[in-house]
Amino acid sequence: SKTAFSPKLPPLLSSHHQVHRLVHSTMAQSKGTVVLAYSGGLDTSCILVWLKEQGYDVVAYLANIGQKEDFEAARKKALALGAKKVYIEDVSREFVEKFIWPAVQANALYEDRYLLGTALARPCIAHKLVEIAQREGAQFVAHGATGKGLQGVSHLLSLPSCQVVAPWRLPAFYQRFPGRRELMDYAKKHGIPVPVTPQTPWSMDENLMHISYEAGILENPKNQAPPGLYTKTCDPAKSPDTPDVLEIKFERGVPVKVTNIGDGATRSSALELFVYLNDIAGKHGVGRIDIVENRFVGMKSRGIYETPAGTILYHAHLDIEAFTMDREVRKIKQGLSLKFSELVYNGFWHSPECEFVRECIGRSQEPVVGTVRLSVFKGQVYILGRESPRSLYNEELVSMNVQGDYEPADATGFININSLRLKEYHRLQSKVTVKQDE
Amino acid sequence: SKTAFSPKLPPLLSSHHQVHRLVHSTMAQSKGTVVLAYSGGLDTSCILVWLKEQGYDVVAYLANIGQKEDFEAARKKALALGAKKVYIEDVSREFVEKFIWPAVQANALYEDRYLLGTALARPCIAHKLVEIAQREGAQFVAHGATGKGLQGVSHLLSLPSCQVVAPWRLPAFYQRFPGRRELMDYAKKHGIPVPVTPQTPWSMDENLMHISYEAGILENPKNQAPPGLYTKTCDPAKSPDTPDVLEIKFERGVPVKVTNIGDGATRSSALELFVYLNDIAGKHGVGRIDIVENRFVGMKSRGIYETPAGTILYHAHLDIEAFTMDREVRKIKQGLSLKFSELVYNGFWHSPECEFVRECIGRSQEPVVGTVRLSVFKGQVYILGRESPRSLYNEELVSMNVQGDYEPADATGFININSLRLKEYHRLQSKVTVKQDE
Amino acid sequence: SKTAFSPKLPPLLSSHHQVHRLVHSTMAQSKGTVVLAYSGGLDTSCILVWLKEQGYDVVAYLANIGQKEDFEAARKKALALGAKKVYIEDVSREFVEKFIWPAVQANALYEDRYLLGTALARPCIAHKLVEIAQREGAQFVAHGATGKGLQGVSHLLSLPSCQVVAPWRLPAFYQRFPGRRELMDYAKKHGIPVPVTPQTPWSMDENLMHISYEAGILENPKNQAPPGLYTKTCDPAKSPDTPDVLEIKFERGVPVKVTNIGDGATRSSALELFVYLNDIAGKHGVGRIDIVENRFVGMKSRGIYETPAGTILYHAHLDIEAFTMDREVRKIKQGLSLKFSELVYNGFWHSPECEFVRECIGRSQEPVVGTVRLSVFKGQVYILGRESPRSLYNEELVSMNVQGDYEPADATGFININSLRLKEYHRLQSKVTVKQDE
Amino acid sequence: SKTAFSPKLPPLLSSHHQVHRLVHSTMAQSKGTVVLAYSGGLDTSCILVWLKEQGYDVVAYLANIGQKEDFEAARKKALALGAKKVYIEDVSREFVEKFIWPAVQANALYEDRYLLGTALARPCIAHKLVEIAQREGAQFVAHGATGKGLQGVSHLLSLPSCQVVAPWRLPAFYQRFPGRRELMDYAKKHGIPVPVTPQTPWSMDENLMHISYEAGILENPKNQAPPGLYTKTCDPAKSPDTPDVLEIKFERGVPVKVTNIGDGATRSSALELFVYLNDIAGKHGVGRIDIVENRFVGMKSRGIYETPAGTILYHAHLDIEAFTMDREVRKIKQGLSLKFSELVYNGFWHSPECEFVRECIGRSQEPVVGTVRLSVFKGQVYILGRESPRSLYNEELVSMNVQGDYEPADATGFININSLRLKEYHRLQSKVTVKQDE
Repeated sequence: SKTAFSPKLPPLLSSHHQVHRLVHSTMAQSKGTVVLAYSGGLDTSCILVWLKEQGYDVVAYLANIGQKEDFEAARKKALALGAKKVYIEDVSREFVEKFIWPAVQANALYEDRYLLGTALARPCIAHKLVEIAQREGAQFVAHGATGKGLQGVSHLLSLPSCQVVAPWRLPAFYQRFPGRRELMDYAKKHGIPVPVTPQTPWSMDENLMHISYEAGILENPKNQAPPGLYTKTCDPAKSPDTPDVLEIKFERGVPVKVTNIGDGATRSSALELFVYLNDIAGKHGVGRIDIVENRFVGMKSRGIYETPAGTILYHAHLDIEAFTMDREVRKIKQGLSLKFSELVYNGFWHSPECEFVRECIGRSQEPVVGTVRLSVFKGQVYILGRESPRSLYNEELVSMNVQGDYEPADATGFININSLRLKEYHRLQSKVTVKQDE
Repeated sequence: SKTAFSPKLPPLLSSHHQVHRLVHSTMAQSKGTVVLAYSGGLDTSCILVWLKEQGYDVVAYLANIGQKEDFEAARKKALALGAKKVYIEDVSREFVEKFIWPAVQANALYEDRYLLGTALARPCIAHKLVEIAQREGAQFVAHGATGKGLQGVSHLLSLPSCQVVAPWRLPAFYQRFPGRRELMDYAKKHGIPVPVTPQTPWSMDENLMHISYEAGILENPKNQAPPGLYTKTCDPAKSPDTPDVLEIKFERGVPVKVTNIGDGATRSSALELFVYLNDIAGKHGVGRIDIVENRFVGMKSRGIYETPAGTILYHAHLDIEAFTMDREVRKIKQGLSLKFSELVYNGFWHSPECEFVRECIGRSQEPVVGTVRLSVFKGQVYILGRESPRSLYNEELVSMNVQGDYEPADATGFININSLRLKEYHRLQSKVTVKQDE
Repeated sequence: SKTAFSPKLPPLLSSHHQVHRLVHSTMAQSKGTVVLAYSGGLDTSCILVWLKEQGYDVVAYLANIGQKEDFEAARKKALALGAKKVYIEDVSREFVEKFIWPAVQANALYEDRYLLGTALARPCIAHKLVEIAQREGAQFVAHGATGKGLQGVSHLLSLPSCQVVAPWRLPAFYQRFPGRRELMDYAKKHGIPVPVTPQTPWSMDENLMHISYEAGILENPKNQAPPGLYTKTCDPAKSPDTPDVLEIKFERGVPVKVTNIGDGATRSSALELFVYLNDIAGKHGVGRIDIVENRFVGMKSRGIYETPAGTILYHAHLDIEAFTMDREVRKIKQGLSLKFSELVYNGFWHSPECEFVRECIGRSQEPVVGTVRLSVFKGQVYILGRESPRSLYNEELVSMNVQGDYEPADATGFININSLRLKEYHRLQSKVTVKQDE
Repeated sequence: SKTAFSPKLPPLLSSHHQVHRLVHSTMAQSKGTVVLAYSGGLDTSCILVWLKEQGYDVVAYLANIGQKEDFEAARKKALALGAKKVYIEDVSREFVEKFIWPAVQANALYEDRYLLGTALARPCIAHKLVEIAQREGAQFVAHGATGKGLQGVSHLLSLPSCQVVAPWRLPAFYQRFPGRRELMDYAKKHGIPVPVTPQTPWSMDENLMHISYEAGILENPKNQAPPGLYTKTCDPAKSPDTPDVLEIKFERGVPVKVTNIGDGATRSSALELFVYLNDIAGKHGVGRIDIVENRFVGMKSRGIYETPAGTILYHAHLDIEAFTMDREVRKIKQGLSLKFSELVYNGFWHSPECEFVRECIGRSQEPVVGTVRLSVFKGQVYILGRESPRSLYNEELVSMNVQGDYEPADATGFININSLRLKEYHRLQSKVTVKQDE
C-alpha cells in the first residue's frame, strides 16, 4: 500500500523547458526505449526527466484504474517533459472482473482486516505496462516505487526480454535525491511543475476499489486520523438516517446483479455494479479501517483505508458462501484463501502458486449461487436474509418439531464414538496424575 | 447454539402436585442420584419430574452465567417439583476469566463470523456440573440438550465414574414426547407450571457474553429478524448520536483496564470490565449478526446473535495483537486459532487437542501488551489508535524520509532473489507453450 | 484396515443343507432384495444365510480386486447357501486407475506411514456394489463390516433409494453372535462349510495394492510379527543379492511406463505396470511396515502391512514431483494431500471435500512429467537419478562456477531485508530483557 | 546444504610466507577485529589472508561438530596464515542436545525427505561464533558461505553490535576470484597450502549428523552417484547378513537409552547414544538419500546425503509418538513440524516463529514416553514392536472378541450423523444434475 501513483496534478510546463530537454535528448545517444509507469506527480515527473538525462527514450503510461485525476492534463505534462509517446489506458473493467472478483470469491482479507485494495491494483496496472512494452518493443520498463513498498515482485516477470529500471532502488538516483528538497530543486531546475496546492501531511493511493492514507502525521500509530482525511466515504455521524436495503445476486461466487429495494434501481454489468456499490457504501460511511499491518519487507506499517463497495461485497459473499458451500469444502477453501491473501499482498499475483490457488478457489465457487439481502446504514452492513436454489440448508432437517433423517438416539452413538478417544485420554491422565502424586 | 437453558420462568407450583410427587418418589426404589442441569423452563422441569418417575433422586443445578433470570423462583420451583437439593451457582467470573479470555486471545471466530457465545458457556456450565456431581457422590448427570445441538461432546468426560442421562436422546423419552403438545399435557398432569406469557416464535439462549435467537419463524433463512427481537443491544437507528471513546489496556492478550475517555469511568476486574463493555456496546447497538452456520452434526442452521462486549474486544485485541506480535508468529497463531474455534464450537473444550492449542495460543500472547483507543458508535467499533511498550512497530524505519537499517539497493537484491524461482517458471512456461503451439 | 473380506475358502456344501434352506426361503414372504458384499468367508456366509432367514432375497457380490481367491468356488458356495444370483466383478483395473493413481499423485500417507491400501479399496468395491444394486433394483445393500472399522462412511450414500443393512451393527445379529463359537455353531447348524485349515492367529485383508495383518496375537503392540506372516513380499534377508534397476516414466503425476534396465522388460498399461511393480518389489522384500495408527472411531490400532508396488511408486513420484513442481505450489499441495489421506482413511472418498481435494491435486500434477531411475534391493528403494522436459531444475543456475541470473551481492540485499523483521525483534527483546533485569 | 566448511586439510605453511604476512599486517592500520568461521580449507584460508590484506585483525574459529578433521593441523595453519588467535571449539554435545533433539521431536523432514543435517548444524556453529565475538570484543564476524546457500539468515542477528563480512557476497572479493583458478593463484602467491590430494569432483559438508555431496558431476540430476562416494555408511550390498536389533527408550520425545539386544551394549548420554546409532546405522548402510530439493533462494538443487543415526531416530520417534500421542494433537503438531522444517532449512532457527514452534512442539512431547524395538539391516530400519506406560493404545478396546466401551449399534448413530451432511449434498447434487439435464 505504497503511494506509487499520486493523484495530485501540477500546472503545465513552460515551453522554454521543453526546448531545453528536447535539445538534450537529441544529443544523447539513446540507450533504448523505456516505458515508464507515470502518475503525473512530482516523483514520476522527475524520473521521466532523469531517464531522458540517462539517455533513454521515454514512453509514459498512465493507468486509469478509477482514481480521480485530470488525465488529459497528465498527458500534456508528460509530453511537455519529453515523453515521446503517452498511453492513458482505462483498465477499470479489467480491474473489477479479473482482479477484484477473484478476491471477492476468496473472501480475501490480509491479516484479518485489509481488503487488499492497493495490492490488487498493482498486478492489473503492471499487466498493461507489460503489454505496452511489448507493443512498443521497449527494452526497459520503469516505475516510481520505492524499496519500502516492494509489493510487486512478480508483476513484471512475464516480460523476459525486458529489464526493470527502478530509480528509487538505484544508488545513482536515490543518493542524488536523499530528500524531498533535492527533488524540488531538480524540478525547478528542469522546469517540472511543482504542485502549488499545499501537500496533505500524509500520502494517498487511490483506485476504484479503495484509497489508502499513510505516512506523515499518520506514522505515529497513536495519532487519530484527522476528520477531514476521508474522501471516499461520508462520516457515519452525518450519513443518512434511513438505510439502503439491497439485494445482491451471486453466480459462481461473483455478484451479477444488485437491486435497491427502496427505489428499484438495478445494476448488472461488473463495472457498473461495483461503482453503484461504491456510491451506496460511500453515502453511508461504510468501509473505513485504521490498522497496523506487516509489510512484505518485514516491518510494520500503519494505514487508514476506505474500501466502500469491497466491504459490502465481503459481507454479502461470506453469507451466500456459508449458505451454499459444504462445511468441509469451506474449511479447505478458507486455508487456500489465507494463502491467496498473503500472496496478493506480497506481490505474487503472477506466480504459479497464486494461479494454482485461484484455480482451486474458483472451482470451489461453482455452487455459490443465490441472493443476499442486506442493509447499509451508518458505517455498517447488516445481513437480513438469503435464498438460493443450491443451498445445503434444509429447513425440515433444522426444524425442532419434525424428525429429520436421523433418530435422536443416533446422537448417542455419535457422541459415544467421538468420546472413545477422549475417554481413553482422561482414563490415562488420571492414572498418570495418580502416579505423579504417589 | 442450541437453547439448552431457556430463561423463561413459570409461576410456582401448587402444593397439591408437590405432595403427589413426593409420595411417588418415596415409593420407588432409588436408582441413585442424578444431578440435572436445570434451567427452570418447561423442558428441564418435565425432565426433572420424569427422572423422578424413573426412580432417580434428582439434584437440580442452575448455573448463573449472566442470563436474566429470577433464580430464587427457579429454586423454589425445582424444590416444588421434587428436587432433593438445588444448587444455584454463579459462574460468571469463571466464565469471563477461564473461557472468554482465552477466546479473546485467540480472536476466536467460528466460520469467520460467530464469536462462540453459547459454545464457550457450555464447558463452563458443565465444569461446575461435574464438580457438584462429585460433591454429591452422584452416579448420574442429566441435561436437556437435544441431539441436534450435540455441541457438548467433551464436557462431561472428566467424570469417569459418572454416567450421562440425556433424555432427549433416549427413545423412551423422545418417543413419549414427540412434540410440544405432549410436553404440555405432561406438565399439566404433573403440576408443572406452564409459562403463561405467550412464547416468542423463536427460541433463545442467553448468557453474559451473548444471546442467540433461532428456530421458529427464523428457520426460513430468508425471513428478516423482526424489529422487536433484540434484547441485548439498542437499535443502531435509535442509539446515541455521540460515540463513546474508550481506551482498553491489554496484558498478555487479555484486557486489564478500560477507560471511558468521555467521563473518565474505569473498570479493571475481569467481570466488571466485561459487564461495562456490554453496557457501552449495547447502548450503541454493537454486536448483532445474522448468519447461517454449519453445526457439528453436519446440517446448516440459521442463527441471530448479539455479542456486545465480545465484539468490542474482538476488534481491540486484533489491533493490539497485530501491533505487537511478530508477523510470522501471528500467521502460525492464526492457524491455531481457526482450530481452536472449530474445537470449541464442536464441544471439544475439554479435549487434549484443545488444551494443547490453548497453551500454544497463550504462549503467543506474552508480548501482546498495550492500549487501544476506539470509538463505539451506531452499531460499529472504530479503532482510532494504539500504543505499546512491546510494539515491533518502528516509526523511524517506517518513515519515508529517514533511511532505515537497509539501503534501497537491498530491495533490488531481495527482488532479484525472490524472482529467481518465478523467472525459471516463466522461462519454462514459455518453452512449454511454444512447444504446444508447434 | 479391517478384514471386511476374508480370503479363506471352505469346501463345498452338502446337498442336504441346500435343500433345507431353499425350502425355508420359499416359505418366507420376501422383504425385498438385498445385495450382499460377499467374501466367501465364514462371516459373510453366515450373514447370507441369516439375511435369508430374515426374509430377504440375497444377491451375492464378490469383488475381484486382486486378492488371491478361488472365485468359482465362492460362486458355487454362495449359490449353495441360497443366493438367488452371484456377481463376481473384476474391479482391478478400475482400482488402479481411479483409486490408486490419485493416491500416487497425492503422495498419500496416513499418519506419515500408511499407504492406505485397504482404505482405497473400499470405495472401489462399494462403487460397484451400488451399481449392482441399481441394476438389480434392490432395496437393500448389506456388508460384513463391523463397527470398529467404520471406514466407509461415504461409500453408499450415492444410493439414496437404497438402505444399508450392516448386521454387525444390528443388536439382533451381534447379540446372537457374541463370539466366534456362536458363529461356528450357526454355520454347522445351517450347513455352512467351516474352514478346515487352521485359522491364522490374526486376520488379513488383501487386495491388489496391499495386505494387512492385525488382531489376534498382533493385538499386543509389543509382539513382533512372526516370520511366516508375510505373503506378498520376500524376506529381505533371503531376497536376491543383485538389485533390479527400473526406470519409471510419469505423465501428469501418473506412471505410464516402467522399464527394467537389467532385462529390458517394459510395462505400459496401468494394471500390468502395477502388477509388474508388485512382482519386483515383492521379490526384493519392499513395502513392509509395522505401525500403530489412529482409527476414525478414535482408538489406536496396530497393523502390519505389505504394499510392494505402492512403496516403489511413493518414492518415485515424490522424486519426480520435487523435480518438476514449483516449491510454493508443492507446499500448498502438501497440505491438500494431508487432508486427502485423512479423508480417504476415514471413508470419505465420495464426499464433496474429497472430490474438491482430488481435483485440486490433479490440477497440480500437470507439470509432473519425466523419468525416475531407481534401484530395488533388500527391502529398500534407492533413487538413482531423474530427468524431465518440464523440470524447474536449471543446471547452469545451480553451478557454482558460472554466474546465474543474479549477482552474489543480491544475496546481501535479500538477507538484509529478510533480517529487518528479525533485527527489530532482537532489538526489542534485548530492551525487554534489560527492563526485566532492572 | 552448501559446503561451508570443507574437511580437506593441506600441509603446513613454510615459515617464509608467515613472515611476509606478519610484516604486511603490522604495517596496515587495523580496521578492527573479525572472528572468521574457519574450516582449514582453501576458501576460508584465502579469506583469512584477504581479510588481513583489507586491514582486519583475524581471529579464526573452527567448530568441531563431529566432522573428521585434523584440528591441530588446522590450528597451526591458521596461525601460520596470520590469525592472531585460533579457537577450536567442540560443539558436538550441544549440537545433539540443543539442535538434533528438537528435530527428532518434530520428526523434522524438509520436503518429505531431507533430515536437515546441514541446516541444523549452522545455527549451532553460528551460536558459538557469536559467543566468541562477544568474548573477543570483535566488531566483525566473517564466513565463507556463498550467496547460493543463503541458509543462515537468522543466525548472526543476536549480535546487534557486530557486523557480518561475507566475502563471497562482496563484489570486491568475488569479482577478484571469479573461478577456482584465481583462488589457486592467490593461494600460491600468498603461501597458502593448496591441497595435494586430487579434489573429489563434488563438494562435501560433514558434521556429526550427516554428510552432503553436491555440485560437480552431481549437478546433472540424472547422473548416478559413483559407488565410492559414500563415507558414513557401508554399501548395503556389502553390509552384514544379520541385523542389529535395538531397543530405544524415549522420554519427552527424546531418546534416553539405546540397548543392543544382540550383545547387550547400552548407551545413555545424548552424545554417546547418537554416536553409537551412527555406528550401527553406518555398518548396515542406513540413511542414504538422493534428492532434488528447493533452496531458500528459489532454485532447485540436487544433493546426496547420508544421515545414519538420524534415520533410525526418525523411524523410532515416529513410532513411539504415534503410539502415545492423541490423534488430534498429533495432527496439529504435524502442521507445526512442517513449519519447523521449513524454518530450519531457510535459516530461521533464531527467529521468534521458530522459537514459538519449538516450544509448542516441545509441549506436545510430554506424553511421548516408551521403548521401541527395531531391526537395522541392509539399508533399512524395521520397527518390530513398542511399549509405553503412557500409551493411549487399549488392547481390550481393540480386541474383536471383547466388547469395548461402546455398543456396535453406536456405530450406526455415528455413521448416520456423519452421513447427514453427505446425504444433503448428494440429494442436492442429484437435483442440480436433473435440472441441468432438462
